[in-house]
Formats: sequence, structure tokens, C-alpha cells
Amino acid sequence: MADKERRGNFFEDFHLDQVIRHGTPRTVTEGDASMYVALTGSRAITHSSATAAQELGFTSRPIDDLLVFNIAFGKTVPDISMNAIANLGYAEARFLCPVYAGNTLHCESVVIGLKENSSGKSGVVYVRSTAYREDDHPVITWVRWVMVHKRVQGKTASTPEDTARKAASKEHRVPALSAFVPTDKLLPHARLRSSEAIQELGETTGSLDFWEDYAVGERINHPSGATVEEAEHMLATRLYQNNARPHFDALAMRDSRVGRRLVYGGHVISVCRALAYDGLENVLSILAINAGTHVAAIVAGDTLYAYSEVVDKWKLPGRTDVAALRLRLVGLKNTSPSKVERAIEETDGVPAYHPGVVLDLDYTVLMPRAQGARLRHS
Amino acid sequence: MADKERRGNFFEDFHLDQVIRHGTPRTVTEGDASMYVALTGSRAITHSSATAAQELGFTSRPIDDLLVFNIAFGKTVPDISMNAIANLGYAEARFLCPVYAGNTLHCESVVIGLKENSSGKSGVVYVRSTAYREDDHPVITWVRWVMVHKRVQGKTASTPEDTARKAASKEHRVPALSAFVPTDKLLPHARLRSSEAIQELGETTGSLDFWEDYAVGERINHPSGATVEEAEHMLATRLYQNNARPHFDALAMRDSRVGRRLVYGGHVISVCRALAYDGLENVLSILAINAGTHVAAIVAGDTLYAYSEVVDKWKLPGRTDVAALRLRLVGLKNTSPSKVERAIEETDGVPAYHPGVVLDLDYTVLMPRAQGARLRHS
Amino acid sequence: MADKERRGNFFEDFHLDQVIRHGTPRTVTEGDASMYVALTGSRAITHSSATAAQELGFTSRPIDDLLVFNIAFGKTVPDISMNAIANLGYAEARFLCPVYAGNTLHCESVVIGLKENSSGKSGVVYVRSTAYREDDHPVITWVRWVMVHKRVQGKTASTPEDTARKAASKEHRVPALSAFVPTDKLLPHARLRSSEAIQELGETTGSLDFWEDYAVGERINHPSGATVEEAEHMLATRLYQNNARPHFDALAMRDSRVGRRLVYGGHVISVCRALAYDGLENVLSILAINAGTHVAAIVAGDTLYAYSEVVDKWKLPGRTDVAALRLRLVGLKNTSPSKVERAIEETDGVPAYHPGVVLDLDYTVLMPRAQGARLRHS
Repeated sequence: MADKERRGNFFEDFHLDQVIRHGTPRTVTEGDASMYVALTGSRAITHSSATAAQELGFTSRPIDDLLVFNIAFGKTVPDISMNAIANLGYAEARFLCPVYAGNTLHCESVVIGLKENSSGKSGVVYVRSTAYREDDHPVITWVRWVMVHKRVQGKTASTPEDTARKAASKEHRVPALSAFVPTDKLLPHARLRSSEAIQELGETTGSLDFWEDYAVGERINHPSGATVEEAEHMLATRLYQNNARPHFDALAMRDSRVGRRLVYGGHVISVCRALAYDGLENVLSILAINAGTHVAAIVAGDTLYAYSEVVDKWKLPGRTDVAALRLRLVGLKNTSPSKVERAIEETDGVPAYHPGVVLDLDYTVLMPRAQGARLRHS
Repeated sequence: MADKERRGNFFEDFHLDQVIRHGTPRTVTEGDASMYVALTGSRAITHSSATAAQELGFTSRPIDDLLVFNIAFGKTVPDISMNAIANLGYAEARFLCPVYAGNTLHCESVVIGLKENSSGKSGVVYVRSTAYREDDHPVITWVRWVMVHKRVQGKTASTPEDTARKAASKEHRVPALSAFVPTDKLLPHARLRSSEAIQELGETTGSLDFWEDYAVGERINHPSGATVEEAEHMLATRLYQNNARPHFDALAMRDSRVGRRLVYGGHVISVCRALAYDGLENVLSILAINAGTHVAAIVAGDTLYAYSEVVDKWKLPGRTDVAALRLRLVGLKNTSPSKVERAIEETDGVPAYHPGVVLDLDYTVLMPRAQGARLRHS
Repeated sequence: MADKERRGNFFEDFHLDQVIRHGTPRTVTEGDASMYVALTGSRAITHSSATAAQELGFTSRPIDDLLVFNIAFGKTVPDISMNAIANLGYAEARFLCPVYAGNTLHCESVVIGLKENSSGKSGVVYVRSTAYREDDHPVITWVRWVMVHKRVQGKTASTPEDTARKAASKEHRVPALSAFVPTDKLLPHARLRSSEAIQELGETTGSLDFWEDYAVGERINHPSGATVEEAEHMLATRLYQNNARPHFDALAMRDSRVGRRLVYGGHVISVCRALAYDGLENVLSILAINAGTHVAAIVAGDTLYAYSEVVDKWKLPGRTDVAALRLRLVGLKNTSPSKVERAIEETDGVPAYHPGVVLDLDYTVLMPRAQGARLRHS
């Protein structure tokens, strides 16, 4: 009988252009949406209100963008990051169509880059992953890169796998990634039906801040903080069917550098995004994640805070009702935004993250245009 | 750009007869109902069983009354109690129609009373809040009053807001509130279809205690206790989309009087009500909350217990199948009901709550009548 | 007025052939399924994917077998095990038909055995419980036996109940129970429609291990561990509407032997079963629980691990597409499977469980046959 102790893939198991179909598709439901609200406090209008979503042109209430992202991500873990030392970054994430309760997601990854570390103990694997609906329509695609253990550590190893790996090493490459997803690759699904809609939306969310009301360079300190508990982050990570050991096994983690269970980074994104609701109430959806870094680990007991910066503002081709805001979401632990002047500081000319920063996420959202809605009507 | 750091309203921001439309409507789902069961242990028959609910004349299984209340309440927090020092009380809460999975709730409040405290640092705001269905049918209405910080503390301040407030101070008033919701304002939605229904219901719940079997003055000590965890109360409070800081931010709460995150009072009500299921199994719905006081704070680690007293019994106009019980639900912490003879004790002639009491809730429920069902049949 | 302090049944309250209809039916929903995933990390293919479930002949995605079992079990607690000292064992559990979101379950038990302990303080009660759908179709049936406190302890008591009990003591008997559920009593509901289905399923789950790929005596060490939190096990147990005090009341449990809240054993089964997904990805459903023992208590902070042994392999009458595997699921606490050579060890000739073992579950699952699917096609 073949060994059935699923140990996941090591660095040697990946090769360029390899296509990996991930197991266990997942039907997403209203139940998942409720759990997500309970776990994150999300109040995003299109995900919170079926009536608002329908007024904005959605079939019904779409599932929260980041819940979809985290479920899709979870599907990739057994094959990609079971033996990961660290999630190093995200890029080129695009949200391609809304997901509704009842959709079943499956996921596939392509290896687009490989780089062995000089230590000989690990390497970096770059994958482009795509989640599909049950009818094979793509719903989200993203690139991530992870540092993965080698099965056989050191350069002198001579197992067959290692030999094969060395032979293939000329294939190793670091992929070129876009700094951000350009506007012609953004797919906005919400639609304001009339000039009255902007007025109605303002009353619905209770905020009159629309696209015109945000300025490049503006910073918003979000008022709330959230202390994370072990049960919460484990519930979330299991909801995403992400089975990476560091989030669940306190005994095994005792011997790790941090000595504790780590909060899954995607859940940190979700919590910080939910904290960022206040001041960004009229965001209709996430269009892209341009770049993301988990700067530091989060463990239970840490309190998360967040601030947002407006990085850029873009009109969208052919649309006067909605436009895009490129935002930087900075997640902090155990220090309030008012105490962090900037995320990256220079000490003796060397730039480094402020010790309170845990997340640096560059993403693009869809925002209604006050002006556009008015113009269209006239 | 306008400041987008949502700080909520201070005492000076409220004026009499002010109407506040609260943001972010919320679609309530089966998922919310499941979370609520997991968070409270609710076994209320009409909310637990779709078949029982339909036999009782409901379209389907209605969402738990207190889940609806807590969600509606949560909508009011960003505008009413973001800067609250304390939730002082509830009154005149009426449950006007069942809410079903799929309904989307929005909420509005009217300021019906204002009273500045003599300290000059805070004031009491009275609001009547109403939650509506997506078709604007009201589903629940209630009065609450909260102590809210003043933006500018002290009587000598001279900011424009403060000046305006002083000018308006002649409007300040304390509203007259009913001691209880009278029977002609109760809206019972359940209906026993036949005399067999009472027999069937007794078999369904496993209890043969109906309206006739409760006596005014009777007390029921509920057998179960529930120790509250941080993750639980935060999950609950986020499910209700209630973003009041004291429930989530352990770091900020270190400097508070209690020094800890506080359990949201509405969740304490929900847990105590679920504990009170045993001995009140045939309650069909909550009709009204007559009065409610959160006597003391609850923090994680506290164990909740409850006892009920039958305050009054009322027949309902035109109904022989069901009637009303007015109950007092006393929530206790870290002491079992058998050790608390009465909730309020006199020491040297001064009445004060027993130190174990945390909740004193006066509410009215709908109970089947054994006799009525029999009479109607004959 | 009759006493309404529900204290549950004591040993004296049971008599042979007694039929107990348990209260509070429960509608099972998509929300419960989501909670269950979040609480256990379940990835079982038929429960995770509606499309996979439909391809396998189910109407839609069935509710997880063990979620159904735990909900059904929870219904029996107020009447059977409110005063239980220990859940001693399970046997003859059969899963009779799939449960879908929307089904409402009610439950009934028959007392099939009674045995007073020689201490005179307690006795063992054997019940056969059956959960039914709203149309009275049975969905699951099982036997369990629990040690229950006597109301009146000691053999010299002379209350009327005790006298009655003694009079009836000649009825006391220990039921004969099957060692395992035979194949002709297994009801497999999944169906592979074609030889391509096995290929498709392998791609869907990401595993090519089918019935033929498991050998009797084979052991699989599952790679993951799960540290349990108080909030998690209480959420789970409340989701199952199981109100047994030892799981919830930390204050009352301080005086118990363990001194802590105990994790509900059915939740331990669920978590261990979810850990056992890796290496058993193509299991389609649970057909039977042959026997089960909770060897030791679990409290919050314990880390659960699991290994599986293939006890037996059976073809099923008239079926070439699927067959049965009898498995032994051994749950461990705070020790990884690689450190436990066997669950039961002999010390000085006396067999005893390894100190790390917490669960010993003998159950039967449905597995696709690679060969059968191929044969049918040719």
C-alpha cells in the first residue's frame, strides 16, 4: 500500500509550468457569509444587504470578496504551502466575477517561478492560482510566493529527487510581476442605475463620502481595534478549509520561533479590512490586490488596528457612475494608528517597517462617483 | 477633504425630535440563526423547528426574537452609543412581526429625551428606535437611554457646538415611559389551530406546562450555567454588527474601570434567555420588553445563571388559544439561583441589588392556553 | 404549581422498554453546515461540494454525517444524560438516509438495558435512540449506554421511588449488542454513475486512493493536530443543542474530578474524524459506528491528533462501484501518532490504553472501488 501520510510538497516537488488541480471543491453558502460577519465584523454594504446589492445590479447579495479569496486560498494550501516557512507576498490578484451563495469553487495553480535559497535549505515558489465556479467561469486569480522547505536540505544531497531538481535548475526563474493591476484589467460589477442611486446609497450606508471625496495622499485612521482570540482565528481558518499546521497545533508550535500558534495572514487581512469600513463605507467591492506583505506575525492576544492611505484614483473606461480607488491598508498590532506616523521609517538611512506594522496591503476598490451620477442624469 | 475618522456622536450632537437613519442594512439569514444557536444554546421551539413553526401558523421558522433585537440594536450603535459610558435601560420594546431568513432590516431612531448630567461631562440620551423590513413594515420598536460623553466637558466650554447646545437646553426633557406594554399593544403571531395542537406541542417540546400552569409570583430557578469566553461574546457582538469599542479592544480597555473587554449587554440577555428555556419550554415568542437594566458588567470567565419570576398573567383580547405571561428574568454571575433569595435586598433600609445580579429584565411572552384550546374545541 | 426546575432523569426514573420522545425538534440548515466546517475543519467531499454530491447521486449536498449524529444525540441529553457521570459507549449506529438542509429532526429513545452499580450510587442505562425526519423517515439509529446518578443513593434508602425501583429490579438486563453492523444492514446512498466518475472523483479530491488501495491492518498517521479552545467546544456543543452542564459551567466543574469544563465527546469524534480526512479523502459517507469509547477526558488546551487503522474491507451486496471499509479511528491528546505504537498496551500482562489515547472509534465508511467502476464499464 502506498504511504498515505500526506506531507505536502517540498521545494523539490515543484517545477516550472507545473499545473496543480487542488482538491475538495467548496460550496459557499449564506452560512459562510454569517460566520464571516461574526469573525470579522464586516459591514460592507453589498455583502450586508441583499436589497442594496440588488439595487446595485447584483443578482443577489454577493459573498464577501475576501471570504472568497480566503476560501480559494485555503484550497491551495495542501499542495502549495503545507511546508511553507512563510507567505512572502501577493500580487496581481483580480476579482473577476461575483460569487453567490450556492456557487461551488474549485481551484488550480500554475508554478510560474522558482528560486532556491542560498542556504540550500529552502526555496521560493511562485504560483498563479485561479478559483473557478462550478461552470468553470474564473472568479478570482492571484499570484503568491512562499518560502518552502526542501525535503533534502543542503547542496550536497544526492537523492534522486534532488538530482532531478538540480538538472532542472536552469529553469529556475523569478517572474516579472506588475506593480499594480491596471484599470483595463479591473472588472467592476456594480452599477448605479440612476443619479438618485447615489443619494439612496448615501442614506443606506449613512456616509456621503464618494469617489470625489477622497484625495490622493489622504490618510484615514480607522477608529476601532480588535483583539484576536485563538478560537476566532482557528474558526476562521477552518471555515476557509485552510489546514496549515501553524494555525492549529499549539503543541507543535511550541518549538517554533514564535512559540505560539500563528494567526493565518488572510484572516488578518479580513479583520483589518473590516476595521477599515469606517471611513470607506461606500466601497462597493474589491477589484484587485496589487501587492501584499505580512510584515510580522500575529498571535492570539494581539490587538489589531488599521489605517488607510489613498494611493491613487482612477476613472474607469466607459463608466461615469463608479471609479477606482487604489488604497494602502496598513495593519498594526498593539499600537493605535495615531501613534504611527508612517509605516516605513528610516533609521540611519535604512528603511524599515515601524515595529507596530503587521500588514501592508495595496489594493483597489470600486467607489461610486457623486459627480458622474449627477452628470448622467443631466 | 473632510475628516473621515468616524468618532460617533457626542451628547452635544443630539437634539430633541432628531431623526437618525442608521447605516448598513442587514439581510438576516439561516446562517445567522445557526450562529445564534451556537452562541446562546437557544432551543426556543418556534425558532428551532420549521415544522413546529408552520404548525403554529408561521410562514416558516422565524428568526429568534432576540437575534432580531440585537441586530437591530447593533445598527443604532455607530450613531447613538459609540461614545456611551453606559446603557442605562430599555423600555417599551414591542415585537411587531416575525422576521424570516431573507428579510433585510434597516433602522431609524428618534431622540425623545435629553438630560445633561450635573458633572457637565456627560448626558443621558433617550431614543426610540425602530427596525423595518425591506418593505418598510416595522418589525421591532424600542426605547433605550444611554449615558453619552460630551465632546467638550465642563460647563464653561465655549465651542460653537457647546454654545448651540446650551441654546437648545430648554428643550431637554426626560420622556414619560410606560411601566409595561399593555395587552392591547401586544401582537401575537402564533396561532394554535385546534385543541389537538396543544397536545401536539406538549409532545414536541416535551413539556406539559402551559399558561394555566404558571402562577403569579411563581419563581423558576433554571438549572444550567454558562461560562462566557472572549471569543464567544465578540463573535456574537460582531454577528450583530455592533461595533462598540468596549467589546473588542482589550488594549484600550486596560485603562477602563473594569480593565477588561465588556460583554455586550444584549448578548447577556440572549444567553440568560436561553438558560431560561428549561421551565418555559412552551413560550412561543417574545411580545414585549417592558423594562431592562444591566445591573453589573460581565467579563469573560464569568459564569451566567438565571431565574425567572412570573410577574403577571394576561388573557389576550379575542384569543382563547394563547395568552401572555409577564416574566422577570434575573441574570446572575458566579452564583447559582438557589443562593439568591431575591434580586433586590435592603441593607439598613436601603434597597440594592444582590451583588450577584447582572440583569433585571421585565418582558412579556406568548404562551399557549391548555384550557382555551380545549374550550374552543368543545 | 408543579416544580419547573428541570433536573433530568435519575437512574430510578428509567424502566425497561420505556419509550421517551425527546423535545425540541431541530431544523438543520446550511448555516449549521458552515458552523460545522468552522468548528471541525471538515473537508469531506460529499459535504463540502454540492456539485460533487450531485454527481454522486445525492439530491444536493448532504449534511455531514457526524453533525447529524451530534444534533440527534443532543436531543437525547435532557432526558437521558442530564445526570450522567460518564458516556460509556456507543454501538450499532446506522446512518439510514442523507439529511439535507431544511430537514427537521426529532428523536426518540427506548430503554433497552439497566444495571445498577454495586456502589448503590449509580447505574448504567442502555438506550436505543432514533432520529427521524419531519416525515418520520428514520435517518440515524444508535445504542449508547451511560452511567447515571441515582436520585437516592445507597441501598438502604426507602423513598417510594426507590421501593418501586427495587420492585422492578428483576427487569434489569444488559442488552446483547453486535460487535459490528453487518454489510446487509449498511445503506450506501452514494452511487458512481460511470467508470469516468472514479477518475473525476480522484481529480476532485486530489487523491487516487480508493477501496482497493487500502489493506486490512494498514495504519495511517494523520498529519494534523488541533488544539481545542473553550469557546470552540462550547459553540459546537450548543450548535448540537446539547445542554449537558459539564461542558458549559466552569464554576460548577471546579468541584469535579477534572476541575474543568469537559469537551463533549461527540465533538472529539468530529474533530478527530476531520483530522482523518488526510489519507481518506475519497470516503463518501459514514455507514455505521460499530463501537466507540471515550477513553479519557479532553479539556481546553489539549491538542488532538488521530490515526486510523483498516480493520476490515467488505464488498457490498449488488454493488461494484462502492464498497465498505471498517476503520478504527484512534484519537490522541498531546502526543503525535508517530509516538504511539499501539492504542492498547500490556503492562505485566494487563491490557490498558496508552495514556495518550482519548478516543477509540470503530466505524464503517463507504469508499469508491476503482476496479468496480472499471469493470462495469467494460
